[in-house]
Amino acid sequence: MFRRVYLDNSATTPIDPEVLEAMMPYLTDKFGNASSIHHFGQETRSAVDTARHQVAGMLNARPNEIVFTSGGTESNNLAIRGLIERRADTLVRIDAASASKPILAGGTGDADKSVRAPHIITSVIEHPAVKNVCEDLEKQNFRVTYLPVYEDGIVRMSDVDATLTDETILISVMAANNEIGTIQPICEIGQLVRKLRESGRKIWFHTDAVQAAGKMRLDVEEIGCDLLSISGHKIHAPKGIGALYVRRGVRLHPQYIGGRQERERRGGTEPDAQIVALGKACEMAQGSLINNATKLRNLRDSLENRIGEMIPDITFNGDREHRLPNISNISFHGVEGEGLLINLDMQGIAVSTGSACSSGSLEPSPVIRALGGNEDVARSAIRFSLSRFNDSADIDRLLDITPDAIETLRRLSPAYKPADK
Amino acid sequence: MFRRVYLDNSATTPIDPEVLEAMMPYLTDKFGNASSIHHFGQETRSAVDTARHQVAGMLNARPNEIVFTSGGTESNNLAIRGLIERRADTLVRIDAASASKPILAGGTGDADKSVRAPHIITSVIEHPAVKNVCEDLEKQNFRVTYLPVYEDGIVRMSDVDATLTDETILISVMAANNEIGTIQPICEIGQLVRKLRESGRKIWFHTDAVQAAGKMRLDVEEIGCDLLSISGHKIHAPKGIGALYVRRGVRLHPQYIGGRQERERRGGTEPDAQIVALGKACEMAQGSLINNATKLRNLRDSLENRIGEMIPDITFNGDREHRLPNISNISFHGVEGEGLLINLDMQGIAVSTGSACSSGSLEPSPVIRALGGNEDVARSAIRFSLSRFNDSADIDRLLDITPDAIETLRRLSPAYKPADK
Repeated sequence: MFRRVYLDNSATTPIDPEVLEAMMPYLTDKFGNASSIHHFGQETRSAVDTARHQVAGMLNARPNEIVFTSGGTESNNLAIRGLIERRADTLVRIDAASASKPILAGGTGDADKSVRAPHIITSVIEHPAVKNVCEDLEKQNFRVTYLPVYEDGIVRMSDVDATLTDETILISVMAANNEIGTIQPICEIGQLVRKLRESGRKIWFHTDAVQAAGKMRLDVEEIGCDLLSISGHKIHAPKGIGALYVRRGVRLHPQYIGGRQERERRGGTEPDAQIVALGKACEMAQGSLINNATKLRNLRDSLENRIGEMIPDITFNGDREHRLPNISNISFHGVEGEGLLINLDMQGIAVSTGSACSSGSLEPSPVIRALGGNEDVARSAIRFSLSRFNDSADIDRLLDITPDAIETLRRLSPAYKPADK
Repeated sequence: MFRRVYLDNSATTPIDPEVLEAMMPYLTDKFGNASSIHHFGQETRSAVDTARHQVAGMLNARPNEIVFTSGGTESNNLAIRGLIERRADTLVRIDAASASKPILAGGTGDADKSVRAPHIITSVIEHPAVKNVCEDLEKQNFRVTYLPVYEDGIVRMSDVDATLTDETILISVMAANNEIGTIQPICEIGQLVRKLRESGRKIWFHTDAVQAAGKMRLDVEEIGCDLLSISGHKIHAPKGIGALYVRRGVRLHPQYIGGRQERERRGGTEPDAQIVALGKACEMAQGSLINNATKLRNLRDSLENRIGEMIPDITFNGDREHRLPNISNISFHGVEGEGLLINLDMQGIAVSTGSACSSGSLEPSPVIRALGGNEDVARSAIRFSLSRFNDSADIDRLLDITPDAIETLRRLSPAYKPADK
């Protein structure tokens, strides 16, 4: 069997053996329900508490500001829908009191929309778990602005300022993009929102930090966000577990209503083994952040430098400075991204054309499109994403194979015309 | 160390070693994202597909009628909120077309409510993940009827018939109760709803089968339900995984919007290890259903007979025929349930006073209250719940300890007056 090389860590990461070790007792002997009063319950309750401290530690948050969820998608949905539904209740009450018309689901048309419709600002490069939620809210008479990005794949504060209205109740902009890794001006947005709130405005800031966690510093006080989403399986914990940071005092309408778990912010028996794993993964991510980032950056730079030397006619997508250390997104002109992905996969190398959550879509990545390049750039983009389990031998193997694969595919491509000829 | 005895399997069950074995590869080597096109992704995709067949097999459903969720609470919320929001959209559209007033969130008061408010029928003994969702919907101008139960803890079809209105769009009644195990007339409700739908009515039937799974036959064709919830950790799979059966043609508004996973009914990276575990647990539950039920019934009957012989002044709560084989709920008059729980726990025996999801509530169980007994019956109720990992030695141990514990507590209780003296 040939050696397989996994370079799709933005889709998911292998579980760290130390994380697995931490969770194993909770898959075997320690199996109580954390809500049970007896010994079995208290054993897992205590483990859940420890994990909550670990997650809070990574974010410089308080433990009771952490709500465990089933992953990044739930965190984002809970943040956005939870906040909007909570605020909507209030707005309806205000409206009912003043005997004016309701503005929410069931409003009677565009006239209402323009008057009092609550407004959300997000960006065109958000993950589907944010963008599609916002699109869904638009159908319920909320107004949404999708901030553009430019060639560098970064949102501009001037655009945030320009789209802000008196009705804006939520800004949701990701910490770093999942396809090109570009870091967004979240501290600036946090500062702006904080200032507005100090002046009495009802406005909140959510950031999807699913890709950023473990690769850059995420301090909720520094960022100034009210809500922040993370996911376990992007940082070497299992799939199916995540967390939402909810700043003290920020109230959400729970999306899963049931028992009193998570201080009534999220019902359902706590998945203790998963939670312990997330806690351990956060602790590890925090402890090795700088070393890990340095290692990843060196590997990634070596990958990019060598590809740049060996393969002509390529574009590095997005800003090469303000980005996560582990993602490289490159367009190989004239090559169909999916064709290259399959070719590399047959030779044991796993990469992706974009978000795994968009697989099955026949359209090229909306993120790459948003950078403003031509159709060829969008169709030929490949994401290489690294983790601490990659090493230089992986890059060697990638470089053994990719140049030939590209050459072959380009020879077969009627569209490809070498730039130099 | 003394031997601990776990008799709280309705709160959660230990993971079966075979289930753990099935999921381990997906916590170690096979770690791809099931939405990824490459080898790593296809490996987990195939495991998710197999599990979907296993879950469908237990329910006599089609694999694509199974939606994986994070557990019973999510399944119930997705079923109820998902259906209501989907139908609500339609109703709003109808209203907008006929230029009448909107009926949903933001309706202008009780007048609207009585005219067109969609109506839900559920029962007073539902799990909080159904009951509290319905209560939340009431705040949004939906009308909810909570069917009573009688001394036997069973809903009556005559009450269903009597509360049905032209506006009823959903009946949600559990398959079997989580505290007393009583089996509800779900096949009869299914038949009724089916007949109404055949005559053109828009009405659906959801059943929360979280406690019933693995302990009684659950055939969705026989039941005639449109939606059915199950949870992994009640059938020896891990916590944090569940499924919702969604009959072909029944459309839900997704609660987690994001990627296209689960045929766009539930976004988020598939937690493959958890899903594999659920699949295996369903396969095992199905394969050993009759043997397992017989074993549990014998153990449970022995527990009840011996308690009945050894301890005076007790009440068996709920019907003793139409109930799950693994649950026994007994009131020990004059004893505070929580006091007994703690006393037994100190001696290594884990039982509960009611749903773990209601822990922290100071009120006695609403389920026991709904049976119509007095305050003493409600306050002194204890649930013993068994699984296939219990044996007669566990019952022996329980019987070694409980009679003395009860006697001690009754001696200390100013309220207790022996019935025979």
